[in-house]
This record gives sequence, structure tokens and C-alpha cells, in this order.
Amino acid sequence: MTREDAPKTKPCFTPIGIIRTPYKDWAPYQPVERDPGREIFRLVLSHEFAGGLRDLDRFEYVYVLHFLDRVETTPSMTVSPPWAKGTTVGLFATRSPVRPNPIGLSVVRILRIKENEVITSPLDVFDETPLLDLKPYFKTLDAKADANDGWVEDLEDRTHLLEHLRGIPHHHEH
Amino acid sequence: MTREDAPKTKPCFTPIGIIRTPYKDWAPYQPVERDPGREIFRLVLSHEFAGGLRDLDRFEYVYVLHFLDRVETTPSMTVSPPWAKGTTVGLFATRSPVRPNPIGLSVVRILRIKENEVITSPLDVFDETPLLDLKPYFKTLDAKADANDGWVEDLEDRTHLLEHLRGIPHHHEH
Repeated sequence: MTREDAPKTKPCFTPIGIIRTPYKDWAPYQPVERDPGREIFRLVLSHEFAGGLRDLDRFEYVYVLHFLDRVETTPSMTVSPPWAKGTTVGLFATRSPVRPNPIGLSVVRILRIKENEVITSPLDVFDETPLLDLKPYFKTLDAKADANDGWVEDLEDRTHLLEHLRGIPHHHEH
Repeated sequence: MTREDAPKTKPCFTPIGIIRTPYKDWAPYQPVERDPGREIFRLVLSHEFAGGLRDLDRFEYVYVLHFLDRVETTPSMTVSPPWAKGTTVGLFATRSPVRPNPIGLSVVRILRIKENEVITSPLDVFDETPLLDLKPYFKTLDAKADANDGWVEDLEDRTHLLEHLRGIPHHHEH
């Protein structure tokens, strides 16, 4: 084994809670930003971790890391995102849930914290998805003003496709 | 067990490669943005995953998820970040590496991709850190213009402390 081989150890994690969403059998590709007006998206931490939520409500956004436990497909190194009309790209150039390590990452708005629960803007995960970690989204570290949308910017129908990427419901003309 | 208890399953992951950095015994708290001018920060994927890197170089930034395998301390639910002068906050309101699930998340700039390697701007991790996943940073999804810096904004010495948060070397007046 050379030094540049992947390590052989298999890190194992223990969920710190579960995510409650209305999605039982279907989930959007990415979070829908519109607030449904009810407290239905909740990060429910095990009580032993509730103390760790202190001061998190001073942030506008939080990173939610979760275990994509419903994914059973074997990952392919190339992907054709369902909304990208036949475009094929490398897996690590997508946010596809079918990955070698099924760790999901969502950025959502923090609405309120109640004891061991964080009420958030809509999340793109199935109900009862295991929660692995929460990290505060710092404007200084994470809001990259000069970011881009990668290969999606090269597509003809870019504006429309970015609505799909964001999970925004919209009208299709036929 | 009620439905809102944390799931009992322990998800295990297999690193997809390793991260090469110059940090053998010390690592900065967050990525330093300045380019050292040499290709010393590299995400080295196992060859079986190299095909997944296709098209990733169209993005300016990438999320790097890694296993914080050097952390041996037991997490505490409150943290006093070393740069925050005695301020104590909840663990999930910090990016401390000592967490219930030691998964690290860094946003770095993609400089170049060469076969199974991604050359990036400086990363805040130890050399040979196991790499778990790469996800493209989409401007549309991830660049939150109305984000804030949470409780750090309440501190008196905010501008200076945000330099610490970003890992920017700077002069201290005595």
C-alpha cells in the first residue's frame, strides 16, 4: 500500500437525532426555499445533545449533514441529472444522493430553536432521515460571492434548469 | 423507543481517497485563502473514483467532506473557541473539530484537476486526512448573500476575530 492509497479504516458514525419532514415516499432534489407556514421541517436532536444548540439561533443558516439511508443504488461515476435533459457529467460534479459515501448536505434557514429541536426552512430529505451533524453557516467562511454554477452555466436552458436545481415549482409550457 | 429517538443504526463509510497538505502536526482552524503558489493541497482519489471528477473543474468552489481522524477528545456540548477570548457557545454553533460525529467540511477553490487529483486552495486539515466526499458548491444553492456570522457579530473585536476564524495570518499589537 502506498501512502496515496485510500485509508483502509472504515469510519462509523452515530446519528445525533432525526430529521422530520413531510416527505414519506418522495423528496425534492434540493430544498424548496418557500416557507410552508407551519413548523413541519424539524431537526430533532437526542436530548443529550440539546445543550450544543445554544447560540445557533444567532445564525441565519445552518449546514445539515445527514445519512442518506434510503439510497440502495450502487453509485456510477457518471450521472445524468433528471432535470438536466440528457447531460452526462461526473458524479462529484453533482449533488446526486447516489454516492460512494451517502452523506447528504443541505443549507437551510434557521427559523427557531425549541429545546432539542431546530425549526428550519424546507429540507430536501425523507422524513426520519438520520441526522449526523449541524454546522453554522458563516457568511465570512461560506458565502462565496464569486462562486458559479459549474457546467449548468453551459446549458442552453440554464435559467429554467437552475429552478429545477433549487427545487422551485414552476410552470412548463407545452 | 419513540419515533423521535435517534436511530440505532451506525452508518459506516469508506474513504474515497486522502487529502495531502503540508500540515503534519498542526493545522489552521479554517482554510487560509492565500495560494502558496505550489500544488501542495491535493485531494487524491482512489483510481476507481477518478471518473467521477469529470466536469468538476467547471466549478469555482467545492465542498470537501473529510473524516477528522486525529480527534481523540470527547466532545463537550459547550465550546470556548481558542480565538474567541473566553466566549462560551453551544458546540453546534461552532466549527470545532471535536463533535459527536467527526466529519469535517471545508469550502475550497478548485485550481485544477489532474487525473485522480484535485489541486485546491489551502485546506485546514492534517496531511493524509481521509476524504469522504466531494460536492460541487453551486452559487444558486450555497452562496447565501443574506447569511451572517452568528454570535461572532456580537463580540466587541469582531473584525479581528473574523480574521482568526478565516485563518488569516495578521499582526497583533501589544
